This record gives sequence, structure tokens and C-alpha cells, in this order.
Amino acid sequence: MALALSLGRRGRGTCWPNPSVGCVIVREGRIIGRGWTQSGGRPHAEPVALAQAGEAARGATAYVSLEPCSHHGKTPPCAEALIAAGVARVVSAIEDSDPRVSGQGFAMLREAGIDVTTGVLAAQAARDHAGFFLKTEQGRPFVTLKLASSFDGRIATETGHSQWITGPKARRAVHAMRASHDAVMVGAGTARADDPSLTVRDLGVQHQPVRVVVSRHLDLPLMGQLARTASKIPVWLCHGPHPDPERARAWEGLGARLIPCALEGHHIDAVDLLQQLGQAGLTRLFCEGGAALAASLLADDLVDELVGFTAGLTIGAEGLSAIGALGLDTLDAAPRFDLIETRVIDGDILHRWGRITH
Amino acid sequence: MALALSLGRRGRGTCWPNPSVGCVIVREGRIIGRGWTQSGGRPHAEPVALAQAGEAARGATAYVSLEPCSHHGKTPPCAEALIAAGVARVVSAIEDSDPRVSGQGFAMLREAGIDVTTGVLAAQAARDHAGFFLKTEQGRPFVTLKLASSFDGRIATETGHSQWITGPKARRAVHAMRASHDAVMVGAGTARADDPSLTVRDLGVQHQPVRVVVSRHLDLPLMGQLARTASKIPVWLCHGPHPDPERARAWEGLGARLIPCALEGHHIDAVDLLQQLGQAGLTRLFCEGGAALAASLLADDLVDELVGFTAGLTIGAEGLSAIGALGLDTLDAAPRFDLIETRVIDGDILHRWGRITH
Repeated sequence: MALALSLGRRGRGTCWPNPSVGCVIVREGRIIGRGWTQSGGRPHAEPVALAQAGEAARGATAYVSLEPCSHHGKTPPCAEALIAAGVARVVSAIEDSDPRVSGQGFAMLREAGIDVTTGVLAAQAARDHAGFFLKTEQGRPFVTLKLASSFDGRIATETGHSQWITGPKARRAVHAMRASHDAVMVGAGTARADDPSLTVRDLGVQHQPVRVVVSRHLDLPLMGQLARTASKIPVWLCHGPHPDPERARAWEGLGARLIPCALEGHHIDAVDLLQQLGQAGLTRLFCEGGAALAASLLADDLVDELVGFTAGLTIGAEGLSAIGALGLDTLDAAPRFDLIETRVIDGDILHRWGRITH
Repeated sequence: MALALSLGRRGRGTCWPNPSVGCVIVREGRIIGRGWTQSGGRPHAEPVALAQAGEAARGATAYVSLEPCSHHGKTPPCAEALIAAGVARVVSAIEDSDPRVSGQGFAMLREAGIDVTTGVLAAQAARDHAGFFLKTEQGRPFVTLKLASSFDGRIATETGHSQWITGPKARRAVHAMRASHDAVMVGAGTARADDPSLTVRDLGVQHQPVRVVVSRHLDLPLMGQLARTASKIPVWLCHGPHPDPERARAWEGLGARLIPCALEGHHIDAVDLLQQLGQAGLTRLFCEGGAALAASLLADDLVDELVGFTAGLTIGAEGLSAIGALGLDTLDAAPRFDLIETRVIDGDILHRWGRITH
């Protein structure tokens, strides 16, 4: 099952809106088939593994990191495929929360006389599929908020100079994180100030995550990196009501997708923003700032994982803050997270924090 | 020698202005004496270890973490004690940089026919004695700057609420750090806002570090923790020219020591501040903020070690900054440090950074 989960993680970022599942077929102690959800979400993990196993699958055990699907979508149901292949036993990590599946995959298998076990490494599976489950249950993607800052929590000097705070290996780790998410998101201020391309580079990765920019007024440079590459790698612009029609036309002409969102005060409502992105199919969203967008996600309790990179330099109080105003009076009201891990990456510290679950 | 160095570290914070030295006497592969510089700086490590070894020291090898002293101070020279005890060989980690000793301790031993080796674990010894060497060579103590902050580098909310950002185990680690320094220092703003006692608590420690407060105008509360305890545990107030004479008299009456320092602009000059503290005998100084004092130490390149505690909460941009204004335009000018270690302490991250040495 640990292998099935690990295979499942390979597909992360590439198979949304589908869950990224792993499957291992074992017969007489030997692995005879391995598969994971392929890019674009099809084929699913089970048919891939079954195809590898071939006739040997008859009487074998299939380990699957999520309940096999039972409904006819763009592919026939995986439960049917497992039955047709003559698998004797299915071991699953966790039940699917998709109401079209939820328990019915297991029921189909059991009706066909297959021995079904579930709940194996369920906690890990719940973490791995958190994005898919969140989208199914709450309609929004899993949100990772990443901030690279100085020892004193600044992301740039007063004049906006930010290249580079962390070293090349830490920046490479950021690219790997981008690749494991469906989309990378920044606020309009960051898009204007840094003119980022938000792509995954130098990792031999084929599939690029969607680039999402949150810009109430669509006032983004039409000559920047995002505009230049929008026809090749998706750019989604989340904007407020009544954007300037010329700008909207220009961006649509460049190939961008426009996603209207509700306002909360003067800013785009973070809750509606994530609902829109969930509706568009995203299960895992990687937000890289800026400070205002980070603050609005935190204030609405929408950050599932907080990733920090801390470098050994001090910028001082005039430097730009990683997180905007949260309006706290006392520490009791501060958003809190549990430490998941710390890692030293070539002299910078990577630290990951998760939503506190009680 | 590793043991001698480790014994030497036991005396840190208690034996200033003397170096904290460790000594191990070995005969035929057996340890027959161990000693370290005692509280108040006397007796030195060597006589303690020799007393333990007794007659058995004759013909033995003495491992000492610093060159044995050769001059008559408040104690007779340790080199003489080693000669009198009939030690056959002395292994030392590093030469003393005190001009009254520097090489003369070794010379005395060699003249007496003792075999002398030096430079064993010299790099570690240089780190351990950094405070003593800095005071001898540059007239100032080794400076550790400690800041406990939120994920986003804030030390309190806008309203000054800071209890508690880190957990009890991290705060306990801070007390252990205080105990290993000669003095704990804060700025006047922190002393006023937090009314700290700056003592070492709950560690069974007898010896308390000196409490240093930097206050240009001596406008510190006469009813606070520091005032209340100044007669028992030293309080040194570093002030600017022409302090209010009544306040000065009041603090002297409470038992505080007043140390006049030069100004640089409107603030106390950090360079002169450290020279005055060096002259007063301090070899290791632990600065716990606030933001303005931290910034002035960093701006004058006076921070030897930077210690951060990072907790899993976010306070936002209105929160108080850990480090005041540094006036940087570009990142090239930012003070940079090398990572020494990271440690997880009950869900908080401790990270230590050192002066970059090339």
C-alpha cells in the first residue's frame, strides 16, 4: 500500500480534476503490475496496472490508494475492470468521498465475490487525497501557501529588491512544489512587481501547472511573461465585477481564461475565489503571495499548508512583509499551524506547517 | 580533548572576565582528574583537575582547552602548577590571545622539560573561546542576538501582545542560553513594554547573568522587575550623556551600575556600547531585542550569532517587527549569516546562524 500511495503521488498536479491514485497488483508475493492516474486524469491507475499484469491478474491482489470508481465517466468504472480481470482481493486505503462512488465501488467488488479490505494507511491516504476530498466536500482546492523570506520575515527590501533571498537549491525545491500542484497562484501586485513566469523549470517536467493571477481590475502588464506565454501554458485571471472590457478582450485574445469572482470589501473574496477555482476543477493550489493575497487566505482560514523558506539574512523593518495586515489584537486570534517538517536546503531552511486538526 | 572542551563549556556565563577552560588529566589511559574554571573565574581548570589527580599527576598528560596561563593574576600561573605537579606532557587546543600569556605559557612548560602539543581541536576551541578572544583582541564581548517570532517574523501584535509566541519548551531553551552567557541585554523599549526580569529560571542554576538595559535617558520604570531585584542580581544601565540626575541617583540607590556610552545620532552607539561592556569584563552577551537595538547591532556588524525561534502562527504586517529599520536598498547590502543548526523544540523551530567566515 505504501508503494501504491507513493505511485499515486506521482500524478499529483497533472490529473486534476481527478484524484491522483496509485495501484499495485501483487500475486504470490510478486509485483506484477503498477500504475498511477495518467496526465489529464485518464487512464486511471487500475487499468494501467491491470494492463501490465495481463492474464496474471486473475486471482491476484490489487492494492489501490483510493476506492475504485463505480460510475461511467469518461472511462468505464475501475471496479468493473478489476472484476473483469478476475482479481481475487482488493485492498484500498480509503473510501472515495465523491457521492458518485462513496462505498459503491466496494459494493460492486463485493457483489462480484471479491474480498475487499479498506482503511490501510488511511491517514496517509487522507493527506495524499486532501485536495480531491476538499474539492468534493467543500468545493475548493487544497491550498499551500509558500513564502520565502529573510530571517526577519521580509520578502524584499523597501524598494522591492527580492532577487535572491534564498539560494538556487531552495528555488529548485519551489519548482518541484509547483509541479506537484494543479495551479500556481499569485496576486496582481506580485505579478506586476516581479513579472514572474510561474512555470516549472529545470526539472524535466512536461506538464505545467495552470498560472492563476488574482487581479480585481485586470490591470496586469500585457507585455509581461504571463501574457507572452498565455497561449501555450494556461493563464487564469480571477477578477472582480465589471472589469475594463478592453483589458478583458485583450487577455482573452492572448488565450487567458477569465474567472469572475465576488468582492469582499475592496478585495476579491477569498472564499468565492477558491470556490470558483474548485468549480474549474483544481484540487491543489500553490499560492506564492503576495502579502495581501496571503493575508486574505489566512484571515478566511483557507490555508491548509504553510511552507516557509528562511534565509540567513536580515532585511529590517522597512522591508516588505510576507503577510499583509491581519488585524489581530491578541495572539489568541492568530492563525496557528502545526509543524510537519523542517529541512535544510543548502543553507536555507525549509519548514512546512499544516492545518491544526484536533 | 573533546572532554576538556566540553568541561570548559560548563563554566560559560559564570567565570567572566576569565576564559572558561576545561582540563583533563590522563595517566595510562585512565582519567585521573577533571576540572573547569569555577564560578567567578577562580580557581582555574588546571588546579582543580590537578587537585583531583593528586600525586598520580606525576608523569601524566594534561589536556587543556586553552594555553595554560603564565602570569601572576589573582591566582598563581597554571603553567607553574602543571610543572610543580610533575606532569610529563601538556596537550592544548589553542594558544591564548591574551598578550600576558600568548605563547609564554607553552614556553614555561617547555623550559621545564614538559612535552607540549597544541592545535588539537583548535577550530572548536576557537568557537568556544570566541567571547574571550574577542574581548582580548577587539575589546568587545561575543554577541548572540536572539529573536522569537511568528512564521512571518513578528514579535508581537500591533498592540504589543507577545505572550506567548513560542511554547514553554522553547522558552526553557532560552533560559539555558541566558545561563551560558555572562549577561542578558535588552533595549529600553522592551524593558518598558514587557517588564522582564531577564533571569534564568527553572533550571536549578545558581549563578545569574548580569542584566543590561540600554536606555539613553534612563527612563525605565522604578517599580518594575529589574528595579525590584537590582540589589540581588546585577543590573547595568547603559545610558547616553547627561542622564536625568534624579533617575540616575534612584537607580544607583537600587543597586544598579550606570555605564555612560557615546551617541551615534539619536541612539547609543552600538560600537561604544560593546566596548564599555567589554571593559566591564563581559565576554559573552545575549541580546533579546528589541527591534531598534537589534538593528543597531546588525548595522554595525556586531552580531556574532543569530538565534531564531519560529513558531507556527501568523501575526500579519501590522505586528511588531523583530528587527528595526536597516536602511537597505538592495539585498547585496543585507547582513548575511551561515546556518549552524536547526532543531525542533516541541513544535517550534530553533535556528542558529553564525558570522560568515571566509
